[in-house]
Amino acid sequence: MKRKCIGGVMAFLALMVFPATVFADDGSAVTQLQTGLNTFFVFMAAMLVFFMQAGFALLEAGSVRMKNAGHIAGKTVLTLGISILVFWALGFGLGFGNGNSLFGTTGFFMTGDSMAKSFDSLAGSDVSLSVKFLFQLSFAAISLAIACGGMAERAKLSVYIVFGTLFMIVIYPVVAHWVWGGGWLGQLGMQDFAGSTVVHLTGATAALVITYMLKPRLGKYNKDGKPNSIPGHNQVLSVLGVFILWIGWFGFNPGSTLSAMMDGFFGYVALTTNIAVAAGAVAALLISWAIFGKADIPSMLNGVLAALVAITGSCAFVDAWAAAVIGAVAGIVTFFTAQWLERAGIDDPIYAFSVHGIAGIWGAISTGLFATPKLVATTGVGKPGLFYGGGLEQLGVQLLGVLGAFIFVFAISFVIIGVMKRAMGIRVSEEEEMMGLDISEHGSYGYPEQMKLIIDRAAKSEPELSTVKPAAGIEEALS
Amino acid sequence: MKRKCIGGVMAFLALMVFPATVFADDGSAVTQLQTGLNTFFVFMAAMLVFFMQAGFALLEAGSVRMKNAGHIAGKTVLTLGISILVFWALGFGLGFGNGNSLFGTTGFFMTGDSMAKSFDSLAGSDVSLSVKFLFQLSFAAISLAIACGGMAERAKLSVYIVFGTLFMIVIYPVVAHWVWGGGWLGQLGMQDFAGSTVVHLTGATAALVITYMLKPRLGKYNKDGKPNSIPGHNQVLSVLGVFILWIGWFGFNPGSTLSAMMDGFFGYVALTTNIAVAAGAVAALLISWAIFGKADIPSMLNGVLAALVAITGSCAFVDAWAAAVIGAVAGIVTFFTAQWLERAGIDDPIYAFSVHGIAGIWGAISTGLFATPKLVATTGVGKPGLFYGGGLEQLGVQLLGVLGAFIFVFAISFVIIGVMKRAMGIRVSEEEEMMGLDISEHGSYGYPEQMKLIIDRAAKSEPELSTVKPAAGIEEALS
Amino acid sequence: MKRKCIGGVMAFLALMVFPATVFADDGSAVTQLQTGLNTFFVFMAAMLVFFMQAGFALLEAGSVRMKNAGHIAGKTVLTLGISILVFWALGFGLGFGNGNSLFGTTGFFMTGDSMAKSFDSLAGSDVSLSVKFLFQLSFAAISLAIACGGMAERAKLSVYIVFGTLFMIVIYPVVAHWVWGGGWLGQLGMQDFAGSTVVHLTGATAALVITYMLKPRLGKYNKDGKPNSIPGHNQVLSVLGVFILWIGWFGFNPGSTLSAMMDGFFGYVALTTNIAVAAGAVAALLISWAIFGKADIPSMLNGVLAALVAITGSCAFVDAWAAAVIGAVAGIVTFFTAQWLERAGIDDPIYAFSVHGIAGIWGAISTGLFATPKLVATTGVGKPGLFYGGGLEQLGVQLLGVLGAFIFVFAISFVIIGVMKRAMGIRVSEEEEMMGLDISEHGSYGYPEQMKLIIDRAAKSEPELSTVKPAAGIEEALS
Repeated sequence: MKRKCIGGVMAFLALMVFPATVFADDGSAVTQLQTGLNTFFVFMAAMLVFFMQAGFALLEAGSVRMKNAGHIAGKTVLTLGISILVFWALGFGLGFGNGNSLFGTTGFFMTGDSMAKSFDSLAGSDVSLSVKFLFQLSFAAISLAIACGGMAERAKLSVYIVFGTLFMIVIYPVVAHWVWGGGWLGQLGMQDFAGSTVVHLTGATAALVITYMLKPRLGKYNKDGKPNSIPGHNQVLSVLGVFILWIGWFGFNPGSTLSAMMDGFFGYVALTTNIAVAAGAVAALLISWAIFGKADIPSMLNGVLAALVAITGSCAFVDAWAAAVIGAVAGIVTFFTAQWLERAGIDDPIYAFSVHGIAGIWGAISTGLFATPKLVATTGVGKPGLFYGGGLEQLGVQLLGVLGAFIFVFAISFVIIGVMKRAMGIRVSEEEEMMGLDISEHGSYGYPEQMKLIIDRAAKSEPELSTVKPAAGIEEALS
Repeated sequence: MKRKCIGGVMAFLALMVFPATVFADDGSAVTQLQTGLNTFFVFMAAMLVFFMQAGFALLEAGSVRMKNAGHIAGKTVLTLGISILVFWALGFGLGFGNGNSLFGTTGFFMTGDSMAKSFDSLAGSDVSLSVKFLFQLSFAAISLAIACGGMAERAKLSVYIVFGTLFMIVIYPVVAHWVWGGGWLGQLGMQDFAGSTVVHLTGATAALVITYMLKPRLGKYNKDGKPNSIPGHNQVLSVLGVFILWIGWFGFNPGSTLSAMMDGFFGYVALTTNIAVAAGAVAALLISWAIFGKADIPSMLNGVLAALVAITGSCAFVDAWAAAVIGAVAGIVTFFTAQWLERAGIDDPIYAFSVHGIAGIWGAISTGLFATPKLVATTGVGKPGLFYGGGLEQLGVQLLGVLGAFIFVFAISFVIIGVMKRAMGIRVSEEEEMMGLDISEHGSYGYPEQMKLIIDRAAKSEPELSTVKPAAGIEEALS
Repeated sequence: MKRKCIGGVMAFLALMVFPATVFADDGSAVTQLQTGLNTFFVFMAAMLVFFMQAGFALLEAGSVRMKNAGHIAGKTVLTLGISILVFWALGFGLGFGNGNSLFGTTGFFMTGDSMAKSFDSLAGSDVSLSVKFLFQLSFAAISLAIACGGMAERAKLSVYIVFGTLFMIVIYPVVAHWVWGGGWLGQLGMQDFAGSTVVHLTGATAALVITYMLKPRLGKYNKDGKPNSIPGHNQVLSVLGVFILWIGWFGFNPGSTLSAMMDGFFGYVALTTNIAVAAGAVAALLISWAIFGKADIPSMLNGVLAALVAITGSCAFVDAWAAAVIGAVAGIVTFFTAQWLERAGIDDPIYAFSVHGIAGIWGAISTGLFATPKLVATTGVGKPGLFYGGGLEQLGVQLLGVLGAFIFVFAISFVIIGVMKRAMGIRVSEEEEMMGLDISEHGSYGYPEQMKLIIDRAAKSEPELSTVKPAAGIEEALS
């Protein structure tokens, strides 16, 4: 008779159970390793997105006149500092903390990983909470940097500080909550993988309102309303800025998988991202060559960014060939909208609304067109797009999201800027604008040695708007 | 009598087998983790190599005159976009797809990881295919950027576009296939760890052909053939560009292990890389101090890059002390070749052939001299070098590879440029060269405010070659 | 009767033991994966810290006059090369090799991972030795870069070479050994997580000695001792430099955990770091606005760096709110010390001692105030701070460490510079200082086209100290 051995049976059963215990979420070595890997992955992505602040600083500085360059570069450091403090204090909780369909109501003043239970919307990922925070913070700071693009060359420094603070409380976190933080748009299945709407359209809409309410720069329009070109002082800086933004997008999109696992899905996201941006760069250069007669470098750079913005929402949902189409269309469309907006009397010095707004809207729409069933299954968000038999349903959700975000951001920004206009004034005086915001807001030129040469030359010839008109106080400032 | 318990025996046997099942390639958690780690590792390396595009843009822009700087920086964005699209469509398959001894014949229009079976040459690594693609793409784009260095300051923009496209189809992928893609040089055991030959010599040879067929820049040589110095407009940009390239090399060489495992071998590769570049920087500075009487910064920067290029092929095969020797020799030799080539009538504005060609050849040779038995065993490629008892065999293979790559690239480039010369012309007119390619190719100066000052000064003094000769159309362009 | 089955018992015991064997350091897959992950993590951190060299080059170049900018950027490449070679040869062993309480006596000429047994002080981490070396090397190179800040605009190039070499042998490695390499301060439980004292105070003290013994720049002080402002030529470069340093700090502090595990502790370190720097940036801007009447960008940038320096020592020991306090205090205090030192007759052109020295001291003190019991337990270093019931004990150790490091570095630097002063001279001549070190040390201007304009203007107006006084030899150099 074969007698059952309790010890053997126990051991056998334990062995059958063991693999499950190895993989269970109970602090085992393999689970800890996976958490470590994913946390390190998202951490690197966050670092890359923080680096994009330098990209914006350079792109914008290179796109403005020399007399404002130090100011434009310096204010980027300031707004990053404000972003960090305000998002830490309030924005992260409002955006991602547990709450209602519109905003979060918990998770303020992040102290570390012990607060994880306040953030159900982030619980799907095993990354540590501190790193999730840094990652979300880096995106919020990008959105504000975009918004500040509309302030260039005429807004007082105090506008950056006050609007920046309020943007990081009542604007960005709300839209983020709607789509990513457990709010109504996420519940409807809106597809915005890394932020075409949440980050770029939000920032761009605020920029549009600000740039409109500031009114155009002095000399931007002739008496008959025809726009003048005000070229930036340094295209090499702008190119470097765009390269840094492009590199940062290696974190922006792939990092949004929040995982280095998933069979290397983050690598696929990087593939679609880079195909799109390449298509956008080449398309924009060719269209400017065709229309302008010259291969205009600033237009090509806008095409690069527009393509990146558009693919940001759709990168995880579309095939590689569709990414090329999305990028090319973004590059071409924004080439034209940049000119239309300018001719319509809206002076948007860094083309923030074309590059981040129009392209952001196209990014949201493109997902509703090109999302494939396979990728919808992988991401677990929404439904396939129009071209894949999904009908108009997903497209409808996308448009609803775009409309909702645009109207909300537009309205809140309008109110805030309107109040600021009355309470403190938002624009520097004409004389300050002429002498340059480096002097008026910061007391010293970013390029003192070169400004001396420019001022000398201006003194000898007719005062041109692109050079500094000698004004009282400048001589002292330059001595 | 001790009765055997089947249950216990079963359990015991299962337990002995279990470790093997944990490590089997059957989607187990540990295997997936390792794939995730390695994929993330190579992804970061690819990102770093893509960042090197910014390094080239700045190094080159700083090395040319102000009137061409926007053009030189901008064309780098364009060629990167072209690289991505063409390599995705055709280059990756030709380079790494299954095929014959000369080139691949499958794997075009990369759609994602499902195409892995078309890429036997890449099957040795568990990294996801999308990331392998991005990694190889980043190297291809570097090779083209090097080639474009030979075009500086006088080639039409269309040359960058047409040659760039053809380079990414019939030149780079072929050489890559020969060494890395399963072709005849790889079969012979050629040692080129990260591309001294495949990337740098290839790009540099194309640059040599182009720069020769373009003929020297206006004013580069006196009537008696003596070369004039045409200094770059901004050494700070060149220094930043070189630092970015140096940092990118943390991906370029260590990433080529395609693994974060192997007992940290990638860290050893980074060690030899950094020892080499330090030796090259110091050696180049000292040799220029000795010969010129001054510690010339551009010469030191060339030494940094030459050392990096040389160690690129040998980094995984040599001891640390040998890396120092390789770097120092590269720095010194290219210091002299840069002058010899210049005196021989070849105007290579960014010293592309000295820094990437001569040093690339030295890199290939150095492997055949210094490869140690231990490291040959670790990498599994080729045989030990001459100084380690390997005789002349490996050195012979290295020289064969260098010769084969050089002749092929030289010949194809010569034909392509020759045809382009006839079909479309490759050089801008004299007037365009004088006014600057920023204007002639792109319609606006990269530094509009500073060019006004320079043009004013030129108008007042004798027209010097390093300033812009006032030409019709410039005044309009600057208004 | 239940008979015991030996087989079953054996299997059961084996199963109970198995988990332990999986996790034992015996080359198992999970252990190897963890080592690979941690090694990759520290490797990325090292890369980020190496990138900070570019940050220093740009910050410093932007902070000096145009005639010295090429020199200041270029010497950073040179000192990095020297750092690598000397630290590899001697510094790493002296700093971290096994030895006595003052310095290491083994581990020279690092050959690779086989030398691990010479480095007990580093044995607590499973990262490969080559990567530990690169990581420590990157920190040493930062310390030297800080020291060189005191040399700006008047020290001969040879001073950088000679002092740089000696600093990397007898200064930095000794202090590193005291705190991190197994020396007396580490034994006393001094808390310096990433180097407020070891890296920043050390470099800053050397900078202070050098800048004092060089004496002030020409024209820095009036006859009555009142300081003149000598503005840097490019604030945009300085901003970019500071952004790069900020990004590098994502490696500097979090990387010092030497682990991607520990429940994501590195993410917490990044959290405190970024809260501190944001507080420092905003505080410095506001204090300068209050005192100067203008939001001074260079002051804000100093605040950013000072906050980073201060949190460097305390990042792993303090709560998030304390990090904000530490950063804000650093930003405010260094704003005032920068002016006091200047008025005291010490011309520190890049404010090296305020930003890296005073803030480094504050960083050491802050740990002794704010270290929490929980984090002291996590890090396993020292005791809780004064505000957490730890009494004055830890604070005392911190002050002892600061004093010990300061006195040692001050004394050795004083002797070295004193000897150099006599043996070779340390300062360029007045004429060389006037024409610019680009010419005197390197034979060519970093900005040749712009210097022509500046020299022309200087020739026409009164010679001002901030422009180049035409001197013999310059015309030739510029032709």
